[in-house]
Amino acid sequence: MNATFPELNPPVRIMLTPGPSLMHPRVYRAMVTPIIGHLDYRFMGVMDEVQTMLRNVMRTKNKLTIPLSGSGSAAIEAAMINFLEEGDAAIICVAGHFAERMAEVATRVGATVIRVEAPWGQPVDPQKVREAARGQKIKLIGMVHGETSTGIFQPIAPYREVADECGALLVVDAVATLAGVPLDVDQDRIDVCFSGTQKCLSAPPGMAPITVGPRGEEVLSRRKSKVSSWYLDLTIVQKYWGKDRTYHHTPPISLIFGLHEALRMVEEEGLEGRWQRHKLHAQALVAGLEGMGLEMVAAPAHRMITVIAIKAPAGIEEVKVRRRMLDEHNLEIAGGFGQLAGKIFRIGLMGYGAHRNNVLLVLATLEKVLGEFGFRAPAGAGVVAAERVYAGAHELADVRT
Amino acid sequence: MNATFPELNPPVRIMLTPGPSLMHPRVYRAMVTPIIGHLDYRFMGVMDEVQTMLRNVMRTKNKLTIPLSGSGSAAIEAAMINFLEEGDAAIICVAGHFAERMAEVATRVGATVIRVEAPWGQPVDPQKVREAARGQKIKLIGMVHGETSTGIFQPIAPYREVADECGALLVVDAVATLAGVPLDVDQDRIDVCFSGTQKCLSAPPGMAPITVGPRGEEVLSRRKSKVSSWYLDLTIVQKYWGKDRTYHHTPPISLIFGLHEALRMVEEEGLEGRWQRHKLHAQALVAGLEGMGLEMVAAPAHRMITVIAIKAPAGIEEVKVRRRMLDEHNLEIAGGFGQLAGKIFRIGLMGYGAHRNNVLLVLATLEKVLGEFGFRAPAGAGVVAAERVYAGAHELADVRT
Repeated sequence: MNATFPELNPPVRIMLTPGPSLMHPRVYRAMVTPIIGHLDYRFMGVMDEVQTMLRNVMRTKNKLTIPLSGSGSAAIEAAMINFLEEGDAAIICVAGHFAERMAEVATRVGATVIRVEAPWGQPVDPQKVREAARGQKIKLIGMVHGETSTGIFQPIAPYREVADECGALLVVDAVATLAGVPLDVDQDRIDVCFSGTQKCLSAPPGMAPITVGPRGEEVLSRRKSKVSSWYLDLTIVQKYWGKDRTYHHTPPISLIFGLHEALRMVEEEGLEGRWQRHKLHAQALVAGLEGMGLEMVAAPAHRMITVIAIKAPAGIEEVKVRRRMLDEHNLEIAGGFGQLAGKIFRIGLMGYGAHRNNVLLVLATLEKVLGEFGFRAPAGAGVVAAERVYAGAHELADVRT
Repeated sequence: MNATFPELNPPVRIMLTPGPSLMHPRVYRAMVTPIIGHLDYRFMGVMDEVQTMLRNVMRTKNKLTIPLSGSGSAAIEAAMINFLEEGDAAIICVAGHFAERMAEVATRVGATVIRVEAPWGQPVDPQKVREAARGQKIKLIGMVHGETSTGIFQPIAPYREVADECGALLVVDAVATLAGVPLDVDQDRIDVCFSGTQKCLSAPPGMAPITVGPRGEEVLSRRKSKVSSWYLDLTIVQKYWGKDRTYHHTPPISLIFGLHEALRMVEEEGLEGRWQRHKLHAQALVAGLEGMGLEMVAAPAHRMITVIAIKAPAGIEEVKVRRRMLDEHNLEIAGGFGQLAGKIFRIGLMGYGAHRNNVLLVLATLEKVLGEFGFRAPAGAGVVAAERVYAGAHELADVRT
């Protein structure tokens, strides 16, 4: 009937990128639950369950814990514009693309942004943050827990310490770490923490969980000006998600259904089990990559486990390698961008994607395709090294999906 | 395995509200197409098709025609903040909730908002807009094509005329009208037009089509300040949807798949056929409601056909009627809010929901439930009156879904 626009028929890809991650069939199934209205009291029940499960996965009692109706980038924006007003000073720890985005958004509010930088591929030194804060009235310190653009992991505690010293809110981008690595919003005393649904939660892209603690709520309640965005204004969005149920906007109902199922799967697996699984597969992947003779971007102490950044071997055009993996194996991995464009590969093992089969497949495929482009690794070295890690992990009764 | 959070099991509702509308099973099916990456060149192909079909349904050649990753309210925001800067003057035609929202968003940018008002339930007089514009430098005139909060339809031409006289951009909220009533962005010379996916397109909620014409693009290119929102900044969002393919944010891939299928269904039906279908079912519904002795809010000349607003009969608590319809018949209709709270019912017949079965069902159910609350209509009068309209519509070979 429609020759011009035939039915969707995309290839079936295995996405091992920094997101979107692979989704479990149960999540797809939940997404086709026939929608009900956003003001239907039965939908309110679903909203409450989603909020409770989000609090569980974020390890927080924060009342204001909701999925925003936008991508992780919408959450970056919400986390800046709700807590900063024109003239406020914010320190942003910048060593990658997503920290840059945080700084960019903060600038657009009219805040004074103090950038504390490190080269891409290294963490930002907390001592430098301390020095930058000295003598200043700092409203918030923004940092990225796992910077997917570089594969760098930054532990929260030292930045929290600086925030305590200068009385600033600590805002943490946990887009690529929530549900994949240990994160405890209340114990880590994070004032504002946000994530995306399409990373370690393995829910569909299009939503962004955010949680705001008591100090953050206080800042919200004392604002002198209105939040620059109406759509992302937490002071009103929360009235729809909270007791009032005041209509704000129509949320993406099917995505909320998918998120509900994804969160149930986190509950079933258990958060510790999920963290352990992500760690195991990352260890196996790194062992395999190093077994092939490849070099990681990050030193072990600051290496993300949900997104592994690898230096592209000299003389290899990484974009061609990725394109061949995509076309011949339906396997998608990512390259670098910004300062690292053309220089690195990035492999994501997140949520449902953090699975032994995917580790073995990406190692085997990478060996084959890199070999075709002239990079020679000992035959099977990657898979063998990975399997050695799995063999040593016998304490895990089953290496789960 | 998870006693606390059982599997989703919402009731199967028939939503005849101002949105979200009912979705066709084909759209649900498309939503479970396994996702592919947002930077996968095969996804770019899907994006191109979606954009082409959006141009067709909006009747425009505008290059900048994209679905925003947010609800219709995000599009209201995008349509204001991208074209207004601090100090600009905007006229907003305010006679309902969504026009209020437009004014609110424009205010947050720091624009001077000139409100031209009418009581809720009436259109805004274009002559008053003309008078308000006199002697002012007006950057844009914002109006709502179909104001779902009141059921009022405002034809575009007279406002376009005023915008021409004062050299302002015309911004049209077509959230509840696109694909339901005649709308031709190029012929109507709308500079910025936006909609939602969950209304007459019958696609999942969570996206918002927007199109920007040459004059709008020129305003964008001449901005002195950055757009206040990074997430909704069309100057950069369009680089992802356009030739550059520059990563901006991860879009809601499953929703785009659903939208793709919904747009294919519009193409198959044909836009004129779809407009005619919406008109027929609205006529049948109004005939039925009037046959029951109910009174419409809007005079015929300004009555929306996709959302019909009905005065609640004296002495009837509309909220109780709606709750009983929901609980006993799984049928959801809406009430009023703002100035019309408690005073009206609103019935949406949009997209897949604009269907003879739904018209007959809502009439029969409303007669029954209103009767239980003491409003007596002649037995079967609503259904009989509606069927009379259908009988007269024999030129429509089949009364399609």
